[in-house]
Amino acid sequence: MSSVPVSLLGRAFALLSVFTADRPSATLSELSRHSGLPLSTTHRLVRELLAHRALERDRDGRFWIGLRLYELGALSPGALDLRERALPYLEDLVEVTRHNVQLAVRDGLEVVYVERLSAVDAVSILTRMGSRMPLHATGVGLVLLAFAPHDVQEEALAAPLKRFTSRTIATPKALRTALATVRRDGYAISDRQIEPITHSVAAPVRGSSGEVVAAVSVVVPVETATDTVLPAVRACGRAISRAMGWRS
Amino acid sequence: MSSVPVSLLGRAFALLSVFTADRPSATLSELSRHSGLPLSTTHRLVRELLAHRALERDRDGRFWIGLRLYELGALSPGALDLRERALPYLEDLVEVTRHNVQLAVRDGLEVVYVERLSAVDAVSILTRMGSRMPLHATGVGLVLLAFAPHDVQEEALAAPLKRFTSRTIATPKALRTALATVRRDGYAISDRQIEPITHSVAAPVRGSSGEVVAAVSVVVPVETATDTVLPAVRACGRAISRAMGWRS
Repeated sequence: MSSVPVSLLGRAFALLSVFTADRPSATLSELSRHSGLPLSTTHRLVRELLAHRALERDRDGRFWIGLRLYELGALSPGALDLRERALPYLEDLVEVTRHNVQLAVRDGLEVVYVERLSAVDAVSILTRMGSRMPLHATGVGLVLLAFAPHDVQEEALAAPLKRFTSRTIATPKALRTALATVRRDGYAISDRQIEPITHSVAAPVRGSSGEVVAAVSVVVPVETATDTVLPAVRACGRAISRAMGWRS
Repeated sequence: MSSVPVSLLGRAFALLSVFTADRPSATLSELSRHSGLPLSTTHRLVRELLAHRALERDRDGRFWIGLRLYELGALSPGALDLRERALPYLEDLVEVTRHNVQLAVRDGLEVVYVERLSAVDAVSILTRMGSRMPLHATGVGLVLLAFAPHDVQEEALAAPLKRFTSRTIATPKALRTALATVRRDGYAISDRQIEPITHSVAAPVRGSSGEVVAAVSVVVPVETATDTVLPAVRACGRAISRAMGWRS
């Protein structure tokens, strides 16, 4: 890490940010190295974070994110309200499709998955609860961006568009066309944009004043025609919207 | 709040701890009042927490727990590993029982629910993801305590046993008997201990070395005989255990 934060809280978040889905646990020296903080500072901060149960230590002496952060995080609006209301409908969608079902919200120019449910026999996918993806490359992201404020759309169109496969939308022009299609159709199909073996179908979730607050999607193997899941995904998006107070 | 923490990190956690399931959002003055911190300190800390996206502000100027804490919390071992592996089996359990299904781990003398799934038509219950309950009063808690280390059991037996209903286990002697029964049977039935209208059936989830790492339960209306869900709950506990690497 290049710049070391000056404030104590900044340092604490630099430490916590060492933990990722790819590195869910770390030793003291790994924490020091990846945060850029001196070992003595790291040691002192870790001790305080342990005391607040923001971190926990396992039998091998490795550190993990603690249950207290899980508990606090569960109070975020995306988790508390949206996720709670959406869950029964997401479960129904898993039951009728037997595929991966995802619920996501927008955070800046990324989607954050607030829920992912999978049938036992569903195709394996990359995302999980709490993970992030760029807006342009996912079905949920295209829905969230298509209905986002104008300035957010312009910001996304001006930003670098990361390419995951040969089919990833990678130019501002292609993205603009894709967003127009989503607004016209009311749903998004993301065709092998993240992995060459899956595509996803996504639909908006609206809040009580009609604004798009989230998106729901089903990820299916590329052999599965999107038509076979599209009506169920759209109906699910509408059912969750109604549970959020939306009236059509 | 009686004592104001001295360290900056302590103050930050005092602020974050103002947020609960009953108070998921707060104004600046509410944050100051409930944390016991001066308004100026509160203002400064809130600004820093906003910058780290540990807090977010809604259109009405109220503060909420931010998505960043949700994202970090999702990396805690209970969420990341256990929950991910357990989810498909929990969904199956919802599908076959049409009741509330819960997955919980022990944190000190409390259970923390890391997942709760509900069928659309299930009886309404108090718990949700991230919420806590005492060990003695819940099915999952009895399972987790029955298989906990000896010193944890003695600590729980020595602690005050909160009474929720007339049927809550409220004496050390009754708790000791209940725990012995759980160890003998390999499951727990919690009979109207939290609310007079529901009971729960819980079974252990084991890790690769055979230790009990979590408990799964179904909460049913008191009219529903526990025998009708018990085999499904026990089989679900075993299925999740196998997914965690347990070999019987």
